[in-house]
Amino acid sequence: MRTSRVEAFSDGVLAIIITIMVLELRVPEGHEWTDMLAIWPKLISYLISFIYVGIYWNNHHHLFQLVERVNGSVLWANLHLLFWLSLFPFVTGWAGETHFAPIPMTCYAAVALMSAISYTILQVVIVRAHESNARAAQASGLDSKGRISIGAYVVAIIAPFFGEAGAIVSGICIAGVAVVWFIPDRRVERTLAEPN
Amino acid sequence: MRTSRVEAFSDGVLAIIITIMVLELRVPEGHEWTDMLAIWPKLISYLISFIYVGIYWNNHHHLFQLVERVNGSVLWANLHLLFWLSLFPFVTGWAGETHFAPIPMTCYAAVALMSAISYTILQVVIVRAHESNARAAQASGLDSKGRISIGAYVVAIIAPFFGEAGAIVSGICIAGVAVVWFIPDRRVERTLAEPN
Amino acid sequence: MRTSRVEAFSDGVLAIIITIMVLELRVPEGHEWTDMLAIWPKLISYLISFIYVGIYWNNHHHLFQLVERVNGSVLWANLHLLFWLSLFPFVTGWAGETHFAPIPMTCYAAVALMSAISYTILQVVIVRAHESNARAAQASGLDSKGRISIGAYVVAIIAPFFGEAGAIVSGICIAGVAVVWFIPDRRVERTLAEPN
Amino acid sequence: MRTSRVEAFSDGVLAIIITIMVLELRVPEGHEWTDMLAIWPKLISYLISFIYVGIYWNNHHHLFQLVERVNGSVLWANLHLLFWLSLFPFVTGWAGETHFAPIPMTCYAAVALMSAISYTILQVVIVRAHESNARAAQASGLDSKGRISIGAYVVAIIAPFFGEAGAIVSGICIAGVAVVWFIPDRRVERTLAEPN
Repeated sequence: MRTSRVEAFSDGVLAIIITIMVLELRVPEGHEWTDMLAIWPKLISYLISFIYVGIYWNNHHHLFQLVERVNGSVLWANLHLLFWLSLFPFVTGWAGETHFAPIPMTCYAAVALMSAISYTILQVVIVRAHESNARAAQASGLDSKGRISIGAYVVAIIAPFFGEAGAIVSGICIAGVAVVWFIPDRRVERTLAEPN
Repeated sequence: MRTSRVEAFSDGVLAIIITIMVLELRVPEGHEWTDMLAIWPKLISYLISFIYVGIYWNNHHHLFQLVERVNGSVLWANLHLLFWLSLFPFVTGWAGETHFAPIPMTCYAAVALMSAISYTILQVVIVRAHESNARAAQASGLDSKGRISIGAYVVAIIAPFFGEAGAIVSGICIAGVAVVWFIPDRRVERTLAEPN
Repeated sequence: MRTSRVEAFSDGVLAIIITIMVLELRVPEGHEWTDMLAIWPKLISYLISFIYVGIYWNNHHHLFQLVERVNGSVLWANLHLLFWLSLFPFVTGWAGETHFAPIPMTCYAAVALMSAISYTILQVVIVRAHESNARAAQASGLDSKGRISIGAYVVAIIAPFFGEAGAIVSGICIAGVAVVWFIPDRRVERTLAEPN
Repeated sequence: MRTSRVEAFSDGVLAIIITIMVLELRVPEGHEWTDMLAIWPKLISYLISFIYVGIYWNNHHHLFQLVERVNGSVLWANLHLLFWLSLFPFVTGWAGETHFAPIPMTCYAAVALMSAISYTILQVVIVRAHESNARAAQASGLDSKGRISIGAYVVAIIAPFFGEAGAIVSGICIAGVAVVWFIPDRRVERTLAEPN
């Protein structure tokens, strides 16, 4: 099976996830600056989540550049990733609505962690699916950036249990990972540039 | 007519169906674990429906691999399938909101049954549409897995009329079919692997 | 300019229009059959609108099969059509919510009329855009089916001003047109079948 | 990297943005003409925003016709543009809901300004990305139309601070820019028509 339809479906789901998050930004009640300021936590959480989903789309795009063939397992590993990403609008809305309360922060970090894990699973399944995907293997593997992210997510899940200050630590971890991943995976571009 | 635009449109509709279901997961009122626990039936119904729509996308993808030409009847049979699948967000929200009450369970199972029937109709219409779709015929036909599913749906529709216990039987049937279909249709992969 | 991206964008917009209408089917308050019965006008209006948008997608698909080149005017004529179609979820929700009250029926018929007119404009603009679209011309033109539809819409707009009975006439006209167009445009299939 | 998937993803996001704005057009409470008239500011703001997003889609389509290769920077510049465009449903809803109150008008104009700036950034990044994109360079650059638009947006941001009359000036500026850009960028069509 060729990859085109998997990419098209993933693009569709990611495009919808990234866009419906804006529906959580309910129109303010009044028409003053204070009404706008009242929703700043929602704007911040929307911005962070937009960057997160953007990062996943970018890396997904890069990864599939190197994939030649897919099978049923790849389709399910991909749906598994999309499932966790589809929960971003929910946790984004909850974290913003509650002004980054501890438990919503833990849930947000948990969704981020599960997304990272399912992306790693997708990479492994792709490499195993077909020998022609060998080039994808070179560019995959859990490198230091991936390991740091997972560590940061674990901190972000646990920290809020220690109260408000922990929720701030959690927010810093989540925003920090977004910054680290902002630059797309150079390894893939390097692999693409190499001669076959 | 070639199949590319039918696939693109179906991918779009399926991507939207699978993603807007998350909008039924309204953000909890408070910010405690109890608020999160209060919505567990919605989370469960979201998960089951995500798997259902994922199965249909997977099988649709497999089926259209073998289709060469489509005509007006195939387009309508495909829209008929999409219509029933589009009701999943509605019955998912209702079943979750009412903590799997009997009548919403019956409706959920009815939508699942109609989706299965319309998928079977789509297969038949595709095979009749063009002789070059003959390979699709080999991989279609209502096999034992399809027959068991339809039986399970019928049980799931009727059982809730016998009260709460019946609603649980209904839930088990629906979840059970999801598990059975989790593995995509091997027959198609086999047909694809065969020499032309 | 080639047509692929216009088709992809139109498919996306049509897929979203056809699917978000289901969001107007709010989950019933209770969990009894009466709660389900209370929303039957919404189910009916959803079904009719699903068929309408499906017809437009089908005919759009058929039309663009014969288009070779597009220009800026075609892009805008296409967006004009999508604008009117995008109002279907709004009028569908209103007609269903008010149990087919006269004024919502007039608005629904007006949106249907404007969609039909903008589709006709799109056909004309396509034929004028490029001489290689000449085959599209053969299959276009306002035939008897188109003229009957426009007449029926005009009746459906005016009738509700004569009260409840008029609203029923309006509903019959709207449903009748859906039935007439259910079969996709045979002229296009005939033109495609002809030798170049 | 080829451009096809960037185009597909952008088409998806733009299709969703243009369509979910209709969800802000809540179904009126009653079923009289007065109920419909009560939402006219929402209908006007929906129409203007539909044209705005349509203009961006048209110009995006034209621009990418001339792009041969993309890199990570182009992907992010494109996501940056999509981020600002994704705020259109939010400011459209707010401006309509408040009957074009001054502060919502300022916010609307600010989103329009940021979209224009991010589109200009995208053009610059594309030209720098690859020498084969040189033809895109010819058709880019901030011409008089672009400069007038940015000036109009700045006026539209500042004017509402001078009260209701300023909000009307703001509305005229925003609608005026839409009219100016209604005709897609002729420079691109001219460049495409030139021999390579």
